[in-house]
Amino acid sequence: MTSDQKTPVCVLGAGLIGGSLLRAAVGAGYDAWGYNRSEAGVRAARADGFDVTDDLPAALGRAAETDALVVIAVPMPAVASVLAAVATFAPDCALTDVVSVKAPVAAEVRKNGLSARYAGGHPMAGTNESGWAATDSELFRGAVWAVGVDEGTHHDPWIQVVRLALDCGSVVVPVVADEHDTAVARISHLPHVLAEALALAGAGGGDLALGLAAGSFRNGTRVASTAPDLVRAICEPNAGALLEALDETLTVLTAARDALRADGSLVDLVEAGHDARRSYETAERWEITDIRPGDHDWLTRLRDAGRRGGVITRDLS
Amino acid sequence: MTSDQKTPVCVLGAGLIGGSLLRAAVGAGYDAWGYNRSEAGVRAARADGFDVTDDLPAALGRAAETDALVVIAVPMPAVASVLAAVATFAPDCALTDVVSVKAPVAAEVRKNGLSARYAGGHPMAGTNESGWAATDSELFRGAVWAVGVDEGTHHDPWIQVVRLALDCGSVVVPVVADEHDTAVARISHLPHVLAEALALAGAGGGDLALGLAAGSFRNGTRVASTAPDLVRAICEPNAGALLEALDETLTVLTAARDALRADGSLVDLVEAGHDARRSYETAERWEITDIRPGDHDWLTRLRDAGRRGGVITRDLS
Repeated sequence: MTSDQKTPVCVLGAGLIGGSLLRAAVGAGYDAWGYNRSEAGVRAARADGFDVTDDLPAALGRAAETDALVVIAVPMPAVASVLAAVATFAPDCALTDVVSVKAPVAAEVRKNGLSARYAGGHPMAGTNESGWAATDSELFRGAVWAVGVDEGTHHDPWIQVVRLALDCGSVVVPVVADEHDTAVARISHLPHVLAEALALAGAGGGDLALGLAAGSFRNGTRVASTAPDLVRAICEPNAGALLEALDETLTVLTAARDALRADGSLVDLVEAGHDARRSYETAERWEITDIRPGDHDWLTRLRDAGRRGGVITRDLS
Repeated sequence: MTSDQKTPVCVLGAGLIGGSLLRAAVGAGYDAWGYNRSEAGVRAARADGFDVTDDLPAALGRAAETDALVVIAVPMPAVASVLAAVATFAPDCALTDVVSVKAPVAAEVRKNGLSARYAGGHPMAGTNESGWAATDSELFRGAVWAVGVDEGTHHDPWIQVVRLALDCGSVVVPVVADEHDTAVARISHLPHVLAEALALAGAGGGDLALGLAAGSFRNGTRVASTAPDLVRAICEPNAGALLEALDETLTVLTAARDALRADGSLVDLVEAGHDARRSYETAERWEITDIRPGDHDWLTRLRDAGRRGGVITRDLS
């Protein structure tokens, strides 16, 4: 793919993910600009030489003129109002998002009549920091970027989203919205909940406990330093799947507590947990190569490949 | 302190902690040797140029001859048999340990009539690996090393243990056994339990969930890759304090689950957890300088200082 084939990119939201995407896209040769609600964020991005405005209609008007790919990069609570603006000012642009849940975003996209041009996305990358100051053009390098293959997805926006993800250095996992949300409840939202609870348990031990804390506590509580509003914006829209994962974990922890009390043993938990971590460490990705977007059954086949650990590392179109 | 004032050191157990201590002590100019049960460990240590034997009476005989400081560096389940050997072959040597719990070790030391020469220790350092291959002379640099200030501790062995900890690059937190065990249940043993449960929740999501997992899951489950027997040897001897911390955490997580189900909100958990992590990040250590080991009330004063975040960074004797 040569540089002049690259779709322009309009990123709505210049926080950690959106701002990093703007940096990465510009770095990869895209014509890319952004919108940010807060003036402070706009100033910070401009000071670094990026084309960011607080004028949402203007940013979207430019997208409509240039047939850009529009990327929603605001937290879930702000998605509805931003999508309403997209429907007004750039209804024909290809559309994606980088929000932490997929089914609630897809529902809002439908409400706004934008589904035909939409393919959802979620780069599995981040830090416990937020805002433009934390942005990094390399944030997505080597990361996994989930891209939606829900029923009705059109191959044209889908190809644009996948190209952008690959150009940012990520590999793409094709996944439908519901399965994405169930999975991230377990590997992203539950870790937040457990980190908060662990931080509380440590602080409950006072200065002595916090003074003795080392690697296991530091690592286990790292994401509890994320801004509370952001954690809530990530976890709460996925309440259903998170409740299921949390219930399961409460059952596991209660059984461990009972066994420790009754027999002084943690054998069942520790051996199963170790096996589980091993299966994470040894999980192997394989490359999806033989599915052409738009061909017969392409969505079903990609969906199935994603479930079995398949990833896209090169443009399939 | 000049090199010739350094007490010889005999380390019993050449795993991650004991082996790293042997490396650090030799690096700091101590005459140090070790014992290891497994021949493979002995061979590996010798291949790296360290003086390690599988002959426990010989290692202890040399300690008795040279009036060495003996360091118990085996997992809790092996402590009783090693202490019996110390009582037989080196009963007059100063004695410490680097085991993850303190009250159960102190009880075994008492049983063997060795309390007068004992000051317990626990360097708060480690990785998820184990065995000689994982040893590192820099493991203790910048770490906190808990040293016992229990009633009846004699200042002579205590000073030797503190000097060794400082010479390995650690700072010393004075703490009594019970309070140590209560604290580490919260900041070391509970993190293990939660990491195992999180690993299980992730693996329960299959290839798709593990394939999407990124930093929060990787960090939150890191210590679940520790060898299961080692995790059990660390956590199970502290069952009482761990049960208390785990019960408290089950209460916190159950309340969060109920609030998420009822109101869709995690506000209470997330704000309290964030504050707790902040108090960990901003906890300040202050240097204990004015307490001389052996002086009137020195143990009580050190105990109190440790509870309030005081650390020892220089030889107080």
